[in-house]
Formats: sequence, structure tokens, C-alpha cells
Amino acid sequence: MKPLAIGLDYGTESARALLLELETGRELEVAVAPYPHGVLSRCLPSGKPLPPAWALHHPADYLEVTQILLTQMAQAARKHTGEVVALGLDTTASSPLPTDGEGTPLALKEAFREEPHAYLKLWKHHAAEPYAQAINQAQPGFLRMYGGKTSAEWSLAKAWEVLEQAPSVWEATSRWIEVGDWLVWQLTGNEVRSACQAGYKAHRQPEGYPSPEALRALCPGLEGWLNRLAPPRPVGYQAGGLTSRWAQACGLRPGLPVSTAVIDAHAALPGVGVVEPGAMVAILGTSSCHLTLSSQAVPVAGVAGVVPDGIWPGFFGYECGQPASGDMLAWWVRTLAWASSSDEAPLFTRLNHALKQQAGPSGLVVLDWWNGCRTPLMNARLKGMVKGLDLATDPPRLYQALVEASAMGTRLVRETLEKATGPLPRVVLTGGLSRVEAIVQLYADVLGSVVEVATTPQASARGAALYGARAANFELPPAPALRIFEPRGWPYEASYAEYLELVDYFGRSQEGGDHPTQNASAPRP
Amino acid sequence: MKPLAIGLDYGTESARALLLELETGRELEVAVAPYPHGVLSRCLPSGKPLPPAWALHHPADYLEVTQILLTQMAQAARKHTGEVVALGLDTTASSPLPTDGEGTPLALKEAFREEPHAYLKLWKHHAAEPYAQAINQAQPGFLRMYGGKTSAEWSLAKAWEVLEQAPSVWEATSRWIEVGDWLVWQLTGNEVRSACQAGYKAHRQPEGYPSPEALRALCPGLEGWLNRLAPPRPVGYQAGGLTSRWAQACGLRPGLPVSTAVIDAHAALPGVGVVEPGAMVAILGTSSCHLTLSSQAVPVAGVAGVVPDGIWPGFFGYECGQPASGDMLAWWVRTLAWASSSDEAPLFTRLNHALKQQAGPSGLVVLDWWNGCRTPLMNARLKGMVKGLDLATDPPRLYQALVEASAMGTRLVRETLEKATGPLPRVVLTGGLSRVEAIVQLYADVLGSVVEVATTPQASARGAALYGARAANFELPPAPALRIFEPRGWPYEASYAEYLELVDYFGRSQEGGDHPTQNASAPRP
Repeated sequence: MKPLAIGLDYGTESARALLLELETGRELEVAVAPYPHGVLSRCLPSGKPLPPAWALHHPADYLEVTQILLTQMAQAARKHTGEVVALGLDTTASSPLPTDGEGTPLALKEAFREEPHAYLKLWKHHAAEPYAQAINQAQPGFLRMYGGKTSAEWSLAKAWEVLEQAPSVWEATSRWIEVGDWLVWQLTGNEVRSACQAGYKAHRQPEGYPSPEALRALCPGLEGWLNRLAPPRPVGYQAGGLTSRWAQACGLRPGLPVSTAVIDAHAALPGVGVVEPGAMVAILGTSSCHLTLSSQAVPVAGVAGVVPDGIWPGFFGYECGQPASGDMLAWWVRTLAWASSSDEAPLFTRLNHALKQQAGPSGLVVLDWWNGCRTPLMNARLKGMVKGLDLATDPPRLYQALVEASAMGTRLVRETLEKATGPLPRVVLTGGLSRVEAIVQLYADVLGSVVEVATTPQASARGAALYGARAANFELPPAPALRIFEPRGWPYEASYAEYLELVDYFGRSQEGGDHPTQNASAPRP
Repeated sequence: MKPLAIGLDYGTESARALLLELETGRELEVAVAPYPHGVLSRCLPSGKPLPPAWALHHPADYLEVTQILLTQMAQAARKHTGEVVALGLDTTASSPLPTDGEGTPLALKEAFREEPHAYLKLWKHHAAEPYAQAINQAQPGFLRMYGGKTSAEWSLAKAWEVLEQAPSVWEATSRWIEVGDWLVWQLTGNEVRSACQAGYKAHRQPEGYPSPEALRALCPGLEGWLNRLAPPRPVGYQAGGLTSRWAQACGLRPGLPVSTAVIDAHAALPGVGVVEPGAMVAILGTSSCHLTLSSQAVPVAGVAGVVPDGIWPGFFGYECGQPASGDMLAWWVRTLAWASSSDEAPLFTRLNHALKQQAGPSGLVVLDWWNGCRTPLMNARLKGMVKGLDLATDPPRLYQALVEASAMGTRLVRETLEKATGPLPRVVLTGGLSRVEAIVQLYADVLGSVVEVATTPQASARGAALYGARAANFELPPAPALRIFEPRGWPYEASYAEYLELVDYFGRSQEGGDHPTQNASAPRP
């Protein structure tokens, strides 16, 4: 029987499963299941309205889609006459939920059904922004490996939000847990946290989580967050075996090794075959995330997180980001569709087609800060800039300039990372935008170096399966095929130099920047 | 019989005539006549093709529309039981044509009918650009009162173009004359040039036209330009009386006093009632032109021309400009119409309507350099810039920001002019954009001062009639009514300060700027 691994990939709107043949690396089956309740952003299932900037998930949805997907994968394994030998999973993050001591979500208890703070707070729940700001202004030492910044999307700001706004929920919260870790707990019966989630979303470093003193200084009582966490294990670590209940319900074997959870973006690294230093993987989606592995931990301004064993065991994982990539292109399409309320999809096609016809640089220089700047300036209040407009600038030219700006941002991220990790000769692209050839080609041109593109559209789910394989002590299959794009030698050096100058000028001059300042006192939100 | 004056206003696509009652200032009649051949930009009337950037007029068209319009005005005068006592005219400029010694255009002679260089070169004929660049690089002393710059649109560059590209035409050219001066010659039989055309378009200063030495240094033979010109007379000066032939053909009285010609924009000053210092008049159209009167001549960087008796007799006339105002708004509308090829006019209406609903500044800062910067930087190669974009920036917001940028440019022009003229407490707006209330209101807000708006849409034609009245020694009628717009107190000081900073930053840093440099040698085009 061929050994097979299942990778589960939990996104924002749906979850998917992948069945991977471990000897060959062939992807045998893919299945998708949407969350029955979707994203709760306007009201609870009962109709109780939510304030703006809220985004919740119903914890029960995860159990439902998991059972559907695992059942399908078990059936597919039988069809392919293989044996499922490993299970791994990745999820969005930080997407924490409060549970009791047995791991039962408070949202599933009668007493808390009408309490919004009892639900799973999705990564894009942004209502904790004032708490993030208060933490950043206080500049506690635990931000050192995070470019001096936490985010409203992360675990601590969301925990503080519950503590302050729903003390009774916080009181009843025995465990404050990322949905990925909670799923591992559900599947194995063991509460085993992941170094990935803990390190990138809860400021956990080798010396531990933030100290009780540092948390108490932010807000008396906030140190109680620590009692609700647990020390993490490396990614690719065997958290336990599948419980008989799950095994029976889905048609899998009890005791099937289950790996610790991983964040979806991070799972893309093994998914595209990167399990050692020297390659930067950029996941180009709505926003972009840049990840690499290194043997050393060097704090560099603008790197959003350096976490041991957080991406692949045995290495420090580095994370950087651009908060608007596809989002910026979608903004332009939305702008162009404004006059006529025309469909946006054909406009994308038309612009990408025009991009393919271009014969040289746009001549414009753009700062890609439509949603602030993460790496290297860590300033959410920065805004986008376009320079070089004239009466002949047409929509395809500006579209090209926006793509170039995303690529320049990625080039700057690479150079920023290299200060910590040394040379990164390989650049691997994945994510939605990487499926558009003209965009990838322009990245190669702007970066002035070869870029490689994942051919699997399931890089994260594939990665999840590989964490499972590693946890079960199976050898990894051969790396998946990558497509190579060579730069066309277009002259981008002068405009990249100008981009850097403008990053410096506008990054520095911008008022109200929230770049870390030392010794600031901690205002309460 | 009520004394009436006729004002003739020759534009790019058509000419118009206005009949003005001199005692009251009432505008009795307006008539419009399009040029039969329109703008010749692709080919001559014979079909002979023209190179790109060419724009010609057929000289015969001017005679034809003049006869039509004067005949209509004579009839209208009889209808209103008045007597036409004065005639004045304004035209586009620099729009020169070559004629023989009697004023017959070469284009009307059989031998030159197929010779493009024999036609009237319209102001927007841009093929003389290399000659303008060569002049600017040489930095001759005669550019001192012109911010160190000539333009491809002006007389000298266009003359050099003929000299070099069509020597036989140049040889046959006895007079090189602005269309306005040529029309005066046709109407009166006297070749009388205008200080306005000569000063603003042929670098004529009190000490004379550029010296033969300076011209020879640019190109041997170019000093021959001077023999083809003539010393000018002030605006509002009686050039002569209407010839019997014209009088008979149109039903006017022979000997009717005809004033020297004026440039159309400049004619707007008396047209809106400004005939003394203290007011800046901005003509807001495709581009914007800013004019004011002063008793002193002070050269200031970025002022495109300082000319004695060039706008109103007895004063120095100052001219500044923004090369893209309405053009920049039209660019945005064109961009928004791109996706759907939708009509542009309703989009303007929709954007102007949204502008009226806005309740505060856009929050963006824009450099309005879509067609280069005239005042104060005199650099045609500068490009537009937009700063402050984010995912929530919608088309109306950017439209507002573009209008704000035009207004900030106008505020900077006012401050630049004030360095030479002293305080300019009044700002009067006219031209196409001044008919949109929401735009005018935003100008008042950004300028932080009251602005006045001409209620007549015929400011230039009205001005032309008033130059005629002055030439005929009639008293001017009362100034026309102006609408007052008070600033709403919106907070624009910080963004204007940022605008100035960015003007400085991008104006300075821009490579390839053609800002005057001293002692450069004169490369040949």
C-alpha cells in the first residue's frame, strides 16, 4: 500500500484537503468545503448585530468541515489503493478562541451563545486596534524580534480586548488558543501548541512568552493571558494520534500521527519544496508575505517576526510582509469599474493582457503603501504614492506601475532579509498573483534575478501534508516542479534607486508615523 | 444713437463676435463662426500629409469668418438702434504666418499652396520643440524677463523652424506676423504690431527685440527674423480706420477706429473689469493662465513674461501659467471612461456633483504637473504626483484632490507674482472651469481668500471690444458684475505646506530638468 498524507488547509471562507502520495509527491485529490456560517461580520447567527471591524468564525464550522474533508480523503485513499499514514494542518492566524479546560469553545455553551467575545476572532477582526496601538506605544521589550511592533490581528491585542470588554468571558476562559492548535487538540485529545502560531502571533521567543511583569505593566490582569496559553512544540512535531472517535467517524485509522499546526502562509514553504536556507518564498495574494529560513537569529528593523522552529524544525523562520499587493491591483480595477459598474473580472483579464504586451518599464514610480507599510517601515499609517503621471498615462500603464511597485517592495524585503540571513539566491513565488504570467515576469524584471513559481495551486495544503509526513517520520517526497522566469534585462535600476529614495523620504517625513519610539509611556486605549 | 463697440475673439476652432453697449456695459449680441478648414493637423487641404505635432490654420478662414461676424454685428447694431464706434480684436498666440510685403499670406499663393511651412502655425503646433530647446540651452540674455525660457509655441522657435526646414519659404517671407497683427493690417491697411503679441511671444522688451548678435549666435541667418518684424504699439492704441472695402462688405462705416490686437487670455482682464494693479486674473481652461498689472518691472523666476503696455496701457503686464488644469481633470474622466468607453460629459457632471457634497479636504496631496510645470519651475519635463492613496480612495476623492492641486498651483502662482508686484488682494477667475461652482468654491477654500468669478462667458470678446473703445477714446463702461465666493475655513494650511515641500523636493530632484543653466553652449537642434 502506497503511503499517503492528508494536508488540511483552513482558509477564511472555506477549508480544503489534499491527498499526497509520499513516494512521488503526486497530488492525488483535492476537496473543498465552505464554512456553513461563513464570516460573521455583521451579526451573530442569532441576528445579534456586531460593531464595525468585527470578523468572527463559528467554532462548530471547523468540526463540520473537518469531518466532511477527512471522510472524502479516506475514501479517495481507498480508491487510490493507498494508506493514509500522516495528517497535518494549517490555518489562518492569529485566529484565537476561548475554551474551557476541556477545549470546548465558550461559543458552543448556552451561557455564551449571545456573547460575541466568546466566538473565534478571525485574523481580520480589526476591532482590537486600540489595544495594539497601546502595546506599540509602550514598546515592551518582547517586541524586539518583531520589528518593534505587534498587530491588532495578533493574539495579545485580541486577548486584551476580551479582558477589557467582556470580563465574564475572560473569567470563563480557561484556554486562549489558536484555531490550529485547537483543531490539533480536537483531533488528538492533546493540547499541543505550535511554535509557529506562538512565535509569529503570540510573541513567543526561546526565553518564553512575554513576562508577567511586562504584561501587567500594560494592564493589570493581562498577565492572566499566560495561564491560558501553553509552551509550544516545533512545527512538524507529532502532537499525538487521531482519536478513535474521529477515526471511526471519517474512516481513518485510530492513532494516525497528527502534526502540530502551522500558519497557512508558512506551510507554503515545504509546499513549494523549500526546507532549508537560501530561498525567499513570497506568497503573493491580497497582501504579500515573505518567508525564509536561517540558522541564525538576527533582529533586523522591519522583519515582522523571527521564530525558532516556526517554519521548519531546526531553523529560525523569518517573516516579512507587504499589506497590499493584490488589494492594490483590485483597487485600480474597482476604480476603473466605478463609472460603469462594469464587471471587475474581465477588467483584470484586459489589464493583464495589456501587461503582457508592454515592451519596457512603465516609467512611473509608485510606493505600494495603499494599506500602510510593513517591511521595512512598520507603519500602518503610511499611504500610497504615484509619481510620473502625465496626460498620456493610461490605465494599463498605471496597472503596470502598481505591479512594478509590488515587485520593488518585494525586492526591498529581500534586501532587508539578506541583512539578517546572508544571501538569498533563490526567490520562489506562490499565491494567487503568481498564477498570472505577466505579473511574475515583471517581478523577475524588477528584481533583476530569476524567479521560480510554484506550479501547484495548493502549496499550503501540500505543505500541511508534509508537516504530517515529517511528524510521522516519513521521508519527504521530491520537491515539486517550479517554473523559471528569467529577467528580460529591462532597465529598472534607476527607478529602483528612486523608489528607495522615496521610501526614505516619505517614510521619514510622514506625520503620525507609529515607528517605535523608546521610553514612551503606555496610554490606555 | 447709442455708441456700440464690436469685440472679435479668434479661438482655435471658431471665432466669436460681441456687440457691447458702451454706456451701460450691456452685452447686446454674440455670434460664433467656425473656421471652414478647422485645425489642419493631419494634412493640408490638398490631402498632403503633415508630420506629427503639427497644427496649422488656413489664413483665408480668418477673412471669411471676419466678414460673416462683422456683417452680423452691423445688422445687430441697426436692430438695437446703436452706432458702432469702435472695433477691437483678440486672437490665440503665438500663431504667426509668413506674408509678402503687402501682407498676402504665402499660403494663398499658388507657388506655396503645397508647402506646409507657408501656412499659419497655430499656437499648439509643437514641431518647433527642438528649436525651443536649443534656445533655452543657450540661455541668451533676452530670456531674462521670461523666467529664462522660451517655448516651442512662441514666435522665434517657429521662425527658426521655417528658416531651417523650408529655406525657400523663409526667403519669400517678407513679413513674419502674428495672426492678430495680420488681421489688423487687413482691416486697416496698416501694418501695426501689438506690444502684447510682441512682448509675450517674441521676447520684445523696452530695449527692443532680441539683438541680431544674440540671434546669429543661435544660428547664422536667424537675425533675418528681425527684418520680418516691426516695432509694436501699446494695446488699446488706434491702429487705423476700417478700410472702405471692409466697411462696404460688412455694412459698417469706413474709418471705424480699430485697436491693436491682443492675445485672447490677456483680453480677459478688461473683460472682467481689471484695468489696474492689485488683482490677479486666472483664466482656468485646459491649461491656466494668470495675469496681473503692475507699475514696476521686476524679473522673478517662474514668471513667463513681463511686458510694458502688453495688457493695459500704462502698466507692466505679468503672465504666469499652469500647463494642465482642465486637462488634468479631463485625464481623470478619460481614465474612468476607459473600461466602458462611456461618455465623458456625464462623468464630469457626476464628479462635480460629488465635489459639491464633500465636507472637507481630500487628504491627498497632488503635484499638478501632468503637462510639466510652468510657474514657478519652468520645467516641461516634470510629471504629476499623487500622495495619500489608500484602499478607500475613490474616484470622486481623487477628482477633488486634482482640483485642490490646481488651486494650490494657483496659490503658489499668486505668491510668486506678489514677490514682483506686491500684494494682490483680489483674485478673479474666468474661463471654462470657473463656470463650475464646486470648483470655484474649492479654489476659495484652498487659496484661503475670497475669489471673484466673472459672470460673462465672453470675457475675452468683451475685453476686445473695450480695447477698441479705448483706442477710439471712449470711456469704459462700468465693470461687469462678479460673483463672490468666501472660503469655508477648511483646514488646508498643512497640506499646502506639504505641497510646497513636495514642489521643492520633486522640482529639485527631477533629472533632466531644463531649468536654465548659465554658460551652456548652444547645441544645434
